[in-house]
Amino acid sequence: MALRGVLRLGEVAIRVLDMAEARQHYGDRMGLHEVMEDAKGQVYYKAWDEHDHHSIVLRQTDRAGMDYFAFKVFDDATLDSLEKRIKAFGLAVEHIDAGVYPKSGRRIQCVLPSGHTMQLYAHKEQIGNSLGYRNPGTTPDEGVIRGFRINRLDHALLGGINIDENAKFFTEVLDFNMSEKLIDHDSGATLVVFLSCSIKPHDIAFVLQPEANKFHHVSFLLESAHDVIKAADMIGKYRIPVDVGPNRHGITRGATIYYYDPSGNRNEVFAEGYIYYPDTPTIVWDTSELGNAVFAQDNVVRASFLEVLT
Amino acid sequence: MALRGVLRLGEVAIRVLDMAEARQHYGDRMGLHEVMEDAKGQVYYKAWDEHDHHSIVLRQTDRAGMDYFAFKVFDDATLDSLEKRIKAFGLAVEHIDAGVYPKSGRRIQCVLPSGHTMQLYAHKEQIGNSLGYRNPGTTPDEGVIRGFRINRLDHALLGGINIDENAKFFTEVLDFNMSEKLIDHDSGATLVVFLSCSIKPHDIAFVLQPEANKFHHVSFLLESAHDVIKAADMIGKYRIPVDVGPNRHGITRGATIYYYDPSGNRNEVFAEGYIYYPDTPTIVWDTSELGNAVFAQDNVVRASFLEVLT
Amino acid sequence: MALRGVLRLGEVAIRVLDMAEARQHYGDRMGLHEVMEDAKGQVYYKAWDEHDHHSIVLRQTDRAGMDYFAFKVFDDATLDSLEKRIKAFGLAVEHIDAGVYPKSGRRIQCVLPSGHTMQLYAHKEQIGNSLGYRNPGTTPDEGVIRGFRINRLDHALLGGINIDENAKFFTEVLDFNMSEKLIDHDSGATLVVFLSCSIKPHDIAFVLQPEANKFHHVSFLLESAHDVIKAADMIGKYRIPVDVGPNRHGITRGATIYYYDPSGNRNEVFAEGYIYYPDTPTIVWDTSELGNAVFAQDNVVRASFLEVLT
Amino acid sequence: MALRGVLRLGEVAIRVLDMAEARQHYGDRMGLHEVMEDAKGQVYYKAWDEHDHHSIVLRQTDRAGMDYFAFKVFDDATLDSLEKRIKAFGLAVEHIDAGVYPKSGRRIQCVLPSGHTMQLYAHKEQIGNSLGYRNPGTTPDEGVIRGFRINRLDHALLGGINIDENAKFFTEVLDFNMSEKLIDHDSGATLVVFLSCSIKPHDIAFVLQPEANKFHHVSFLLESAHDVIKAADMIGKYRIPVDVGPNRHGITRGATIYYYDPSGNRNEVFAEGYIYYPDTPTIVWDTSELGNAVFAQDNVVRASFLEVLT
Repeated sequence: MALRGVLRLGEVAIRVLDMAEARQHYGDRMGLHEVMEDAKGQVYYKAWDEHDHHSIVLRQTDRAGMDYFAFKVFDDATLDSLEKRIKAFGLAVEHIDAGVYPKSGRRIQCVLPSGHTMQLYAHKEQIGNSLGYRNPGTTPDEGVIRGFRINRLDHALLGGINIDENAKFFTEVLDFNMSEKLIDHDSGATLVVFLSCSIKPHDIAFVLQPEANKFHHVSFLLESAHDVIKAADMIGKYRIPVDVGPNRHGITRGATIYYYDPSGNRNEVFAEGYIYYPDTPTIVWDTSELGNAVFAQDNVVRASFLEVLT
Repeated sequence: MALRGVLRLGEVAIRVLDMAEARQHYGDRMGLHEVMEDAKGQVYYKAWDEHDHHSIVLRQTDRAGMDYFAFKVFDDATLDSLEKRIKAFGLAVEHIDAGVYPKSGRRIQCVLPSGHTMQLYAHKEQIGNSLGYRNPGTTPDEGVIRGFRINRLDHALLGGINIDENAKFFTEVLDFNMSEKLIDHDSGATLVVFLSCSIKPHDIAFVLQPEANKFHHVSFLLESAHDVIKAADMIGKYRIPVDVGPNRHGITRGATIYYYDPSGNRNEVFAEGYIYYPDTPTIVWDTSELGNAVFAQDNVVRASFLEVLT
Repeated sequence: MALRGVLRLGEVAIRVLDMAEARQHYGDRMGLHEVMEDAKGQVYYKAWDEHDHHSIVLRQTDRAGMDYFAFKVFDDATLDSLEKRIKAFGLAVEHIDAGVYPKSGRRIQCVLPSGHTMQLYAHKEQIGNSLGYRNPGTTPDEGVIRGFRINRLDHALLGGINIDENAKFFTEVLDFNMSEKLIDHDSGATLVVFLSCSIKPHDIAFVLQPEANKFHHVSFLLESAHDVIKAADMIGKYRIPVDVGPNRHGITRGATIYYYDPSGNRNEVFAEGYIYYPDTPTIVWDTSELGNAVFAQDNVVRASFLEVLT
Repeated sequence: MALRGVLRLGEVAIRVLDMAEARQHYGDRMGLHEVMEDAKGQVYYKAWDEHDHHSIVLRQTDRAGMDYFAFKVFDDATLDSLEKRIKAFGLAVEHIDAGVYPKSGRRIQCVLPSGHTMQLYAHKEQIGNSLGYRNPGTTPDEGVIRGFRINRLDHALLGGINIDENAKFFTEVLDFNMSEKLIDHDSGATLVVFLSCSIKPHDIAFVLQPEANKFHHVSFLLESAHDVIKAADMIGKYRIPVDVGPNRHGITRGATIYYYDPSGNRNEVFAEGYIYYPDTPTIVWDTSELGNAVFAQDNVVRASFLEVLT
């Protein structure tokens, strides 16, 4: 008990159209650390304050979007236990041997009702955050924190069908909690669900879409709202296309800016937001307050934010 | 799984020498919200962004310090399960009926190896953070966030004997994880243990002391390091005695200031610090780097910080 | 020498359509301090860290916009000297006796080539910033800094004709310096001039408009970019119409948000920006980089920002 | 008029005991840009957002302290005018030809009543802040802002005799204004004077000392209090000896940290503080509030801060 089971979003595999441009974006500009290129030309990144070998995988192909996402779980026993529960829920589970994914132990994989491919794994090589584990100090060497000063991969928002089923799966099978949801004001239909396995307001979220397996954005945690402003300055400097921001979300209360990678995949950097605990009621937003729910500093809904997915 | 079991430090009961002075300190100056005075004259406070009825209880008596602390757990089943595990560990468990503590369901209580009285409870009346749960927005009415702009009770550091036993209890019985520890450079003896049940670097910590059941400090979470600076400005304005700060901890990487309430109990307000996960190695500090471990912006150990407990 | 002559923008007289709404906006929400209502129903405000009696005057009428703006100058001798220089430049100068404007010494007034009415005065009653002048401390009592946490009136941007003439007037007659200007990329025509009498990047600015004597915005200084974010949160909470922001200007490098008062007059709160000195070259922006010049975090020009004036 | 005459502290010449250590300190760690080493081995630095060629000059010798400081004035006519006024005040004026000081036009030099050598100059080569003057954007290339993220040389505090005479000289001859002063509570004797030629709370300050021509500290401006915290983190990382801080000054209201260079010269980095205008009363602090005057977040006077000068 305490924090056990599913720990965190540990890996997001993003499809890009041009690896050179993607490297400039994720590495040179955003400041993620490139840790490996594999034999297939996939490029692996970590944020500075992550301990695992990597959290972002880029694959060049002719269609943008997300191949899969993966959660890291507490241990092997968790994997076994969750496999049973996933099957009991009615989803097929695929086994992936250790080493198939670089630096990673065995994985289990399933396709969610929303159409997304999700993996779970208990082991990935840890290379640390450069500070070490003995008298580490607080501050890495100059150059380690760079670019947008990203601390960690934080969460993803995915678009798809059957998101009520997804919510049921995450809460009943994976023991996530629904921190917030957005519903249609008139019909009450669920439009977006925010799901947490920790004390963050969300670790994963799903937005209803007519098409399965779509990618809305991947989000990275910054240390402070100050750093959101500075990231926005760099986004402007590099003429990175901005979707929305800087602004503050009503949902999660995070300070945010959304922008696009060169392939059209949406990224977010954010900071702040409240501490969530599973014993508080789910916050419900409806579309009568859609503007406030998404961008609470001006209450303006941006069409692109609702419509552009990869 | 995910976040289950013990959720958070939910209540700290502090002894004060003069309730009028304490009210000025915790209420008027720090800006906690007084929610109740009970028939015995005990005064109850909550921080603005907490949902439960209260998190701090003040009792006037002739000796400063802490009466008890209490963790909120996920549900009644957790209480039952933990009772068995606590007894199996060898500690006596006392039952406290619902209602004995105001607004609270039943509690179980034990005395830790360090001498501190710890309670667990699964239910406390929730009064919310003033924003509501339907289209809440992000920003409470002016005056709700006030004083030091405290968001939440965060953790406590307690001094006592047998802290290795305490660490064993918290990790083996309550499923906490040891995020960091400070050891003696020469003997290797454990001096301080930092224990997390969440993704915070600590939810409770214990420092070795020759005397059992001592109180080092209770700590409150602010939104940002900016707010630590502003709290420090107010601390200076009110001539509140400062123990240390502003500074940054090596341990936890939090931005901090320590000060005393009028009874001599140490308080902390802090912000920032890293996201902790239980699959990373315990960070070990030793006394050869004691300065950096405690106050990493000047590496200076303050005697008062080591020696003053209530 | 040193800082002498024209000191600062000391007064902006704004026309509002409904005084009750305006009071809610400027007083209750923005947090300016109402210091007086005069016999004609005009309402006077100061920001907390200003020393003079007031800096904003609101007058209810049926057309929004600005009646006049006024600079405070160093002393009476400056007034006399500037009167001669203004006349030599060819503008008519009107004398206004002490006391005609409340709390104010005598003023001189002229109509600028752009069509705006400008006043100069050397004396206004000082009521201080609440801290006093003997051992003042750093932090006013709780409630003094409130709302958007505005420190000071900072500058205004005015729209009109003949702005090259205005620039000539300000630099040659009033000894202002041109810190930056925006020109048309093709014709080289001057579109906006930024004029400083201090080490701020601007104390007044003029944007070319087909119509004389228009008002673009009045701007208030916040302590930090953090406070811009917090002001934006409140703007969103109160559903105040946002024009643009939060964002950062290319011109002046200020962190900004623009919004409208209930009468449609544009306001700005901002922080940061560089320190300007008159011995550095005028920065020139042209319309090929208009987006970056105005909103450098997304390089997007907003039509409303160019077109809405009162 | 407006900002004319003496513009700013443009150059501080510091004596260091070991140039290699000094280079590591001022260049590698603080992040000032080394722009030149002259034939005598003196090393020249600028902060990133300064336009002039350099503002700090280091000279290796066997005694720490300051050789001289220099103000940049508006133009040659100012130099001529000030020379007359300085002589009329009774100080000897020395002429220094253009080129004697690298990249610099002619200078005039005098020895102040406090014993310090002051120079004035109207011209120094400008190399800009790397952004250019045509469509400059807001954000320099990565690596330009580095280390402590220092924007500018801001002011110096010098210790010496006859500081009342110095104050008279600066206010009567150079048209500075006295923003604040610290006096002895009992005798009323002046202990520190804060003198401004701009809208900064001080451009130069003098503290009474039994010995002439002493150096208390040179201070650099950061963009925000956030950056003060980050600089403090780096100061701690590099084990740079900290004198005081982080804290906030009562005088000037700046957020500050003081530390020593390897030769024992005190440095400060700071941010915030109020906007000063010469038409407000001089703020007077007395020694009954010495703690609040110097370090207002804990009201503690540090002996080292009063006693260590080079």
